[in-house]
Amino acid sequence: MERRRFLVKAGGVLAAAGPTVAIDAPNVIAQPKFQWRMSTTWTPALDVLQGAAQRLGKIIDEMSGGRLKIQVFAGGELMPAFGCFDAASQGTIESFMGAPYYWAGKEPGMQWFSAVPFGLNPQGMMAWYLHGDGLKLWEETYATFNLVPRPGPSTGVQMAGWFRKKINSIADYKGLKMRIPGLGGKIVAAAGGTVVLTPGGEIYTALERGVIDSTEWVGPHDDMKLGLHNAARYYYYPGWHEPGTTAEFGFNKKAYESLPADLKAVVDHACQATQVHTLMEYEYKNTVALQKLKTEFKSKVEILQLSQPTLKELKKLADTVVKEESEKSPQAKKAYASVKKFEATVNDWRLISEAAYHAQIAAA
Amino acid sequence: MERRRFLVKAGGVLAAAGPTVAIDAPNVIAQPKFQWRMSTTWTPALDVLQGAAQRLGKIIDEMSGGRLKIQVFAGGELMPAFGCFDAASQGTIESFMGAPYYWAGKEPGMQWFSAVPFGLNPQGMMAWYLHGDGLKLWEETYATFNLVPRPGPSTGVQMAGWFRKKINSIADYKGLKMRIPGLGGKIVAAAGGTVVLTPGGEIYTALERGVIDSTEWVGPHDDMKLGLHNAARYYYYPGWHEPGTTAEFGFNKKAYESLPADLKAVVDHACQATQVHTLMEYEYKNTVALQKLKTEFKSKVEILQLSQPTLKELKKLADTVVKEESEKSPQAKKAYASVKKFEATVNDWRLISEAAYHAQIAAA
Repeated sequence: MERRRFLVKAGGVLAAAGPTVAIDAPNVIAQPKFQWRMSTTWTPALDVLQGAAQRLGKIIDEMSGGRLKIQVFAGGELMPAFGCFDAASQGTIESFMGAPYYWAGKEPGMQWFSAVPFGLNPQGMMAWYLHGDGLKLWEETYATFNLVPRPGPSTGVQMAGWFRKKINSIADYKGLKMRIPGLGGKIVAAAGGTVVLTPGGEIYTALERGVIDSTEWVGPHDDMKLGLHNAARYYYYPGWHEPGTTAEFGFNKKAYESLPADLKAVVDHACQATQVHTLMEYEYKNTVALQKLKTEFKSKVEILQLSQPTLKELKKLADTVVKEESEKSPQAKKAYASVKKFEATVNDWRLISEAAYHAQIAAA
Repeated sequence: MERRRFLVKAGGVLAAAGPTVAIDAPNVIAQPKFQWRMSTTWTPALDVLQGAAQRLGKIIDEMSGGRLKIQVFAGGELMPAFGCFDAASQGTIESFMGAPYYWAGKEPGMQWFSAVPFGLNPQGMMAWYLHGDGLKLWEETYATFNLVPRPGPSTGVQMAGWFRKKINSIADYKGLKMRIPGLGGKIVAAAGGTVVLTPGGEIYTALERGVIDSTEWVGPHDDMKLGLHNAARYYYYPGWHEPGTTAEFGFNKKAYESLPADLKAVVDHACQATQVHTLMEYEYKNTVALQKLKTEFKSKVEILQLSQPTLKELKKLADTVVKEESEKSPQAKKAYASVKKFEATVNDWRLISEAAYHAQIAAA
């Protein structure tokens, strides 16, 4: 075959199962092909989060002209939802998608990379990753697990969660069995709650059967995809525990480093494009879902605001608990100090930009 | 030379000035090379905006493995700042960067693609482009100018501007000579002001010499880069006229369409990555600049809030003026109706997410 002869002459490189090397010719390059697998912590019903993984695969495929293909699996398809971090760490798969606070048992410091209660909003978190030390510390923390992290979808300010009983004061958190990960969970525990960490796909059953009394997930769109509006009546805001949540894309270090420079850049910027794409998707889809809750499910769901005294008490607990948590490892200590410093810096600007806009312009 | 021989054998394709064609071989592709020029409306001092154009060029170069290179020029280097739209439209250059409201003289509808007074915040605008009809209408409008638009940097909520005299009420806009583009400018004109549109690089001189009494630009960081804090004392917030401003990357249609599919994807997603990157950069750099204004320039600059009655009057004018403006062309009419509908939809969600977060959590 003509094609085979050509390949042989082009420096003896043949199409093989593994990546092939680039030939130093100005306009003709042998194209290495990479076929990766990504396993996520999500259920297929979560069209925004699982959709973000699929979208990442799609735009990497497009931008690389087919040289890097990522086959994406939902939790449970290839392995259990929470098995993907270890699998990517060990190199069984090349990449995963989840949220850093799911892995807090391995290293408490990871919690800060997802969301900080009473902390930064989406812009703030994203700014901390790139203009503060956020991503640097995250990379440092994940390097010990042979992983390279990249900020993934930004959910925007979340909802405080679904409750089977009303929350009238901080006392109502006492004895509450709640599904809530990360630092938010530590605060609910400090308020007297019992905290569990359940993958998305298993929450509805737990709530519906009364194994838990309450759960937070993301916002109206995702929560309805999980059916949570059919399992609890009271839906509270604002999401004090997750004002600027960021999910993650994680890559096996060896796999990531084996990519040529252009494909590394494709992966990095595809993650960033996906981050903002998802923030927009949430902004829109949460809006549509909220309207549905207010009309179609009007008699079944009450959307309520957490009272100011309740939030004050939660914040008081947060100040203590988050600090205590930061003393559990050197990485946690560094992340805590870094985000705290960054937050203090951006707060002045937030107050006269976004906050003033929402307060003053809405009132005008 | 070995290299030349290789190229000739690979199907007779030789490196040439123009793009070369791809060879149908699985692992070896002849790489078309594109060398583009981009001219912007910015001055080199604007490190975030001009920096975004340079960053776009850099990441496209990286992701394309050098197959698409964009040489970036600031306003005045290759042509006058406001000459870039026409030059890209006519194909003299392949791409430009500016803001759609600069071209309102060509088509009033373009104003809606930049920012809508008392309208959507950054998430909202970005969501309108992709999940509303924003980008579709924008593409439709630019197609008649042989251009393909892509949303560029998002500035975040802006400042209301620099004033040489205090603004105590709406009456103080009467007779005010102000540099302010787009729909915001139409509103200031309706309040009795005289409105001018000056490229960034010329504002300081105009303000310092008293040719204008006032100007808006972006926020603390950019405004200080232009030296505006040395030309006026009163710095007002919030930026009622531009709560969610988005700049633009524009591409000559023929040039864009001549790209192979993978490079089109690289351009599109590079724009999106740049959009969020800039939003973060502003979040951080505005913070640093604001602190500088509050300390180093404390005796020279007063940072003041526009009063609620002033904003109320501006909003009243906005409702009338923006509607009137929308009647000036079919494209304006469509953009107005589309953004208004989208805004009404997302407002409910905004109130219980970002707005509730800023108000309640800040108070906790």
